Amino acid sequence: MLHPAPTDGGLMARRKKLYEGKAKILYEGTEPGTIVQYFKDDATAFNAEKKDVIDGKGVLNNRLSEFFMKGLTQLGIPNHFIKRLNMREQLVRAAEIIPLEIIVRNVAAGSIAKRLGIEEGTPLPRPIVEFSYKDDSLGDPLVPEEYIAAFGWASQQEMDEIVSMALRVNDYLSGVMYGVGIKLVDFKIEMGRVYEGDFPRLIVADEISPDSCRLWDIETGQKLDKDVFRRDLGNLADAYTEVARRLGVMPSNVTHTPTKPTLIN
Amino acid sequence: MLHPAPTDGGLMARRKKLYEGKAKILYEGTEPGTIVQYFKDDATAFNAEKKDVIDGKGVLNNRLSEFFMKGLTQLGIPNHFIKRLNMREQLVRAAEIIPLEIIVRNVAAGSIAKRLGIEEGTPLPRPIVEFSYKDDSLGDPLVPEEYIAAFGWASQQEMDEIVSMALRVNDYLSGVMYGVGIKLVDFKIEMGRVYEGDFPRLIVADEISPDSCRLWDIETGQKLDKDVFRRDLGNLADAYTEVARRLGVMPSNVTHTPTKPTLIN
Ligand SMILES: Nc1ncnc2c1ncn2[C@@H]1O[C@H](COP(=O)(O)OP(=O)(O)O)[C@@H](O)[C@H]1O
Ligand SMILES: Nc1ncnc2c1ncn2[C@@H]1O[C@H](COP(=O)(O)OP(=O)(O)O)[C@@H](O)[C@H]1O
Ligand SMILES: [Mg+2]
Ligand SMILES: [Mg+2]
Repeated sequence: MLHPAPTDGGLMARRKKLYEGKAKILYEGTEPGTIVQYFKDDATAFNAEKKDVIDGKGVLNNRLSEFFMKGLTQLGIPNHFIKRLNMREQLVRAAEIIPLEIIVRNVAAGSIAKRLGIEEGTPLPRPIVEFSYKDDSLGDPLVPEEYIAAFGWASQQEMDEIVSMALRVNDYLSGVMYGVGIKLVDFKIEMGRVYEGDFPRLIVADEISPDSCRLWDIETGQKLDKDVFRRDLGNLADAYTEVARRLGVMPSNVTHTPTKPTLIN
Repeated sequence: MLHPAPTDGGLMARRKKLYEGKAKILYEGTEPGTIVQYFKDDATAFNAEKKDVIDGKGVLNNRLSEFFMKGLTQLGIPNHFIKRLNMREQLVRAAEIIPLEIIVRNVAAGSIAKRLGIEEGTPLPRPIVEFSYKDDSLGDPLVPEEYIAAFGWASQQEMDEIVSMALRVNDYLSGVMYGVGIKLVDFKIEMGRVYEGDFPRLIVADEISPDSCRLWDIETGQKLDKDVFRRDLGNLADAYTEVARRLGVMPSNVTHTPTKPTLIN
């Protein structure tokens, strides 16, 4: 594990750790049905073959995901965000995560460009929603909707809802970015079920951050997302800080100063 | 090119060659709107990285494809077959081919087994229809239906028809095979448009043969399809001959004797 264990004092230490992923740690939340998301500084790419610790990334993503999720709430798009707890943590609604990466693309980049032999940067004829099966050991493979239906990862009704919610998130997030001179090339979200009575309802979960989007400066084409790390294009925290700065989401005392334990809670 | 040019005498030599693919050659047909499919003995796998010439394969596939297409016609499933011309050739209706490999799977094998980490031979919860974009230079990549719609390779209405036709072909072909003790694991077809007046209609085109199916003996599990070649499991022509024999489709004077030019027309 690259990241030092979060130093959280006596209280935090007694929280139950539910899961540690590549970018976040989940702890039991303060109330039933809630979870604490702790954003790490770990960056991984290519199915964790490439790894590094990027000072300040977790703080930036915690703030940015809060910002984007709050915007979704205002539009009536249900999502897991409840409240930010501190620099690296937010309280979210616990969901039964659908094991899919839900990807929306506006411009060809990354895997679709390679798969179809299209030049990166080619606008797609229309936004494309696609799905990867969330399984690191398989490399999160692209899956047709037929697989999703056949294996019951989501019902047909859920798939319809997922596609229409994903397209709404795309409209919203494209707008947010456009407003600050950034092209939303593509992004990935996760969705999960929450139960209200017996009925499951879908909410946007996980995170929305430059870790899970491709963001290109409209003027210069400069990449302001995780590709900076994947492709060694410069300092990742600088890129994320630029996104946060344009959106007016600047954590007061963070990012480029090395994140010492005392800073992060 | 591995296969010797078909020796066809003076008349055939004047036919216009329209296309030479990995397994077949297309010539202009005798009447407008028709094409002659010449079945070669060439076998290729892994995007033509592995190649060989299998004596008698072309003859067998010409006969088997005729047999399967005629069965489709009897069920009212439109297809390109018009008539067999000789041991290696059949006359078919020229179609505007949709650039997709339409794959139907009943049991996990090949790419789906690898992609999802499922053991080969695991029955799928239901038949799965999937699509590859037919482009050798890209390795015929799996594509979500969203890509097909976005790039206009087929309309949504066509996709609905393709899926329902593909499932009918699966029912039919599963039955044919089941009747002779063979499990239809999966198969691939192509479809194309033919124009009647201004209206396009979809027909099953290309071929249906052990080159484009996975066929496992129900009793022994023995493979009777192109995997015999892909995985070096024995003599491919023997396997195809066994399928033809069970189906009562045995070309009178063929297969294991080396296919000399005098035999093939
Ligand atoms: N609201 C939620 N409820 C339950 N699980 C969630 C929620 N939001 C995100 N998750 C899950 O928490 C984990 C986040 O940690 P992350 O480091 O991104 O993990 P991973 O390496 O698995 O992607 C993911 O497995 C994600 O599916
Ligand atoms: N009825 C038809 N009309 C037009 N083209 C056809 C028809 N049936 C098959 N084809 C095309 O003919 C070619 C058959 O040759 P093949 O050796 O299988 O080619 P490939 O290597 O491209 O798969 C394919 O490109 C296929 O799409
Ligand atoms: Mg994650
Ligand atoms: Mg072919």
